[in-house]
Amino acid sequence: MSNQKLEDLRLQVDDLNLEILKLINERAEVVQEIGKIKEKQGVNRYDPLRERHMLNLLKENHEGPLPFKTVEHIFKEIFKTALELQENDQRKALLV
Amino acid sequence: MSNQKLEDLRLQVDDLNLEILKLINERAEVVQEIGKIKEKQGVNRYDPLRERHMLNLLKENHEGPLPFKTVEHIFKEIFKTALELQENDQRKALLV
Repeated sequence: MSNQKLEDLRLQVDDLNLEILKLINERAEVVQEIGKIKEKQGVNRYDPLRERHMLNLLKENHEGPLPFKTVEHIFKEIFKTALELQENDQRKALLV
Repeated sequence: MSNQKLEDLRLQVDDLNLEILKLINERAEVVQEIGKIKEKQGVNRYDPLRERHMLNLLKENHEGPLPFKTVEHIFKEIFKTALELQENDQRKALLV
């Protein structure tokens, strides 16, 4: 009985993982678009105020059960990798 | 024109952030349930084989644009925090 329940819950986690995977890649695509526009405008890609705004919005909408500092940590990781992706795009652009 | 486009893209990122926030909290709830069952069964919560299975599934379904090693890094962070949450639950259980 418990093992069936465990198996069901694990399938739920697998589904949630795949949904999260899809969304972080979708997010990366949008951030790449933003990077291209900023590039054309000659604006710096890293914008601490924008990052603060995003974290505030997350905090306002956060209901748990994860502690918010954990959420913040995960998102800072997501922000950082998106920025790295923009930098790679720019480097590629410089090579062509 | 470009500024309007930038604003639209940022709103898209905000929406995606909130969806990701919702899913990582939902995931944490399910993982808490799993923790309770394992607790009753007296099974160790940390299961490297299960973690490997989840990463393999993510890899099979990953289409980019993020490099997979980045995805792996973000998910290891998510796995770690979920585990910490289970540990907190257990500590609380020991105190009552």
